[in-house]
Amino acid sequence: MQNFEYCTPTRLIFGKGVVERLPDVMKPLGKKVLLAYGSGSIKKLGLYDKVKNLMKDFEIIELANIQPNPKYDPSVLEGVRLCKEHQVEVILAVGGGSVLDCTKAIAAGAKYDGDPWDLISYKVKAQAALPIVDILTLSATGSEFDSGGVISRTETNDKIGYLDPLLYPVCSILDPTYTFSVSKKQTAAGCADAMNHVMEQYFVEDSTLLNDGFCEAELKSLMVNTRACLENPEDYRARAEMMLCCTYGCNRILSLGNSPSGWPCHGIEHALSAYYDITHGEGLAIITPRWMKHILNERTVDRFVKYGVNVFGIDSTLGKFEIAERAIDETYRFFESIGIPMHLREVGIDDSRIDEMAHHIAINEGLEQAYAPLTEKDIKEILLASL
Amino acid sequence: MQNFEYCTPTRLIFGKGVVERLPDVMKPLGKKVLLAYGSGSIKKLGLYDKVKNLMKDFEIIELANIQPNPKYDPSVLEGVRLCKEHQVEVILAVGGGSVLDCTKAIAAGAKYDGDPWDLISYKVKAQAALPIVDILTLSATGSEFDSGGVISRTETNDKIGYLDPLLYPVCSILDPTYTFSVSKKQTAAGCADAMNHVMEQYFVEDSTLLNDGFCEAELKSLMVNTRACLENPEDYRARAEMMLCCTYGCNRILSLGNSPSGWPCHGIEHALSAYYDITHGEGLAIITPRWMKHILNERTVDRFVKYGVNVFGIDSTLGKFEIAERAIDETYRFFESIGIPMHLREVGIDDSRIDEMAHHIAINEGLEQAYAPLTEKDIKEILLASL
Repeated sequence: MQNFEYCTPTRLIFGKGVVERLPDVMKPLGKKVLLAYGSGSIKKLGLYDKVKNLMKDFEIIELANIQPNPKYDPSVLEGVRLCKEHQVEVILAVGGGSVLDCTKAIAAGAKYDGDPWDLISYKVKAQAALPIVDILTLSATGSEFDSGGVISRTETNDKIGYLDPLLYPVCSILDPTYTFSVSKKQTAAGCADAMNHVMEQYFVEDSTLLNDGFCEAELKSLMVNTRACLENPEDYRARAEMMLCCTYGCNRILSLGNSPSGWPCHGIEHALSAYYDITHGEGLAIITPRWMKHILNERTVDRFVKYGVNVFGIDSTLGKFEIAERAIDETYRFFESIGIPMHLREVGIDDSRIDEMAHHIAINEGLEQAYAPLTEKDIKEILLASL
Repeated sequence: MQNFEYCTPTRLIFGKGVVERLPDVMKPLGKKVLLAYGSGSIKKLGLYDKVKNLMKDFEIIELANIQPNPKYDPSVLEGVRLCKEHQVEVILAVGGGSVLDCTKAIAAGAKYDGDPWDLISYKVKAQAALPIVDILTLSATGSEFDSGGVISRTETNDKIGYLDPLLYPVCSILDPTYTFSVSKKQTAAGCADAMNHVMEQYFVEDSTLLNDGFCEAELKSLMVNTRACLENPEDYRARAEMMLCCTYGCNRILSLGNSPSGWPCHGIEHALSAYYDITHGEGLAIITPRWMKHILNERTVDRFVKYGVNVFGIDSTLGKFEIAERAIDETYRFFESIGIPMHLREVGIDDSRIDEMAHHIAINEGLEQAYAPLTEKDIKEILLASL
């Protein structure tokens, strides 16, 4: 077991109707609020009007049109400009993980005099950040309970995850009913994202019975509840449990003391969505079983056996490679069964830029230090197998 | 799934050698420190000298001799007096859950003009508290990661659990090597305490796959690792995993969204240790299987089946009451196997005050609202069965 340090100070307010608490949460944080949201789904939900109404005693500056795989230019830059111009005191993110990730970069950038990219690229350490509150409308990234975000910079094909303890949301308001209208496609992609967050913490050299059990519970719950959400999008219990599962995804509570994994599937997928702007969760679902097949060997097989037996209930008396291969097949088939396109070609990616992406990943993601080390050649093989 | 609110802002610093971080943790909190500890085991450990040496730039006021089942008089009262007299700015608790619980009452009492019992008994809501840092030397209560404490008042036989969000430790320093010298008796009692914390959250009307999986992972890990600690007290991995398991015991992370259970075994045990000052974990281990037997019925049997199959691996094809009864037997046998005296008489409790205790519990613990409601008659039967 490795030494670790952990602190997640975010307050979670969870359940039906909790958005009513918004004014009480915001009051101590400031009067001037940047309201950040995406392409308008919060207006269809009625949540935009609800928030504006609840916040009528505040001064609201709006940043709309934050896109999936949120962009440095224009969203982060525009948000930072608005915060500085209006002396914003607190950011309210309403939407999914992309909106929230974007506001994390804005929160730090607003308190920094130089180019915000200096912070995102770790050239400069942030000294302060605006406080963030969020109302979540999509279960997926876990950004509501962690200190990180992922930002894309189109002109350089960079998609960078950055972390700073200053960026934990002060409060995340989680009402599962706001996820009732999430499409089947986004529900499935959110599940794949969350499942992969767990797997990135589970497939490691050194873990504990406790953490393994936490991760296995997450994976089983995500599969059962995603199926239930797809069957009945207004199944409150299923939407609620899925939301909580996703919330635990990235703040390390599932793997405290584990050795690092290198987050290889995320490393590979970030290039896919940087180059092709695909849905992150779909990219992860496509990569995951190919990555698993690629790294399965004498050294890693026991983790796959544990995964297969405890998550999928595969007969533990079978041979270990048979269990491992069945577990990988089950993983693939689960993603397929929830409607995810399981080939890169189906999401518009052909072989024309595989070499370039493999090179970009190899030099930027540090995957030679991953649990199962990946060279540029390994990455290329995984990408080719995913076509 | 129930609505909930959650926030645990405590910073955990975990692992071998992390006590060296103490001065950096303490510096921002103040110069005048109340150093609180128990009956001297930290001196035998060398931890007292280590702490004094690390803290040589601070002004240290000492409160020693805090007892297990920490007492309002003298410990809390004396601590509050010292804090006020010396204008203490921060409390450093070094020891187990009893020391830490005691300092929580002191932290609130030091910032209150009246009788600290007003706060503990919820007559008055605390408005402020001194910050607390702890160095833990015993895995058991989870007080290092929650906002509660339990205080005993001898003259009235009260043992009261009180909670206040002001009382989360600012930082808990958790070095498993300081638990190497914990006796077999205290190791087993700590395990029973932590297991019961999990069970009090698991046996509820309304739970989730996720929370059930978390709880089952905790229980399995606690059993395996306690056995390993008893076999080899210096097994770092086992001590470390046990420490982390215990840390999650009482801050609700294992049961967010679950319906309340009423914590019945704690309600009953608090009277036992208030009247007889027995070891809390031993009292819980004795009560738990008798409570289980008492509440097993058509309404509750399915929870016991889940518990039996998932925690003890009992054959799921057996009849449900057979599984449930085997699960209760396994619980009893596990506690017995780690050396816990499993009868009240073995810890010095006879039948002379059973009526009085049952009455005290019935009027003070609200167990008619528990998951399986308990009247005074039920409580008396559980106590008699535990003799």
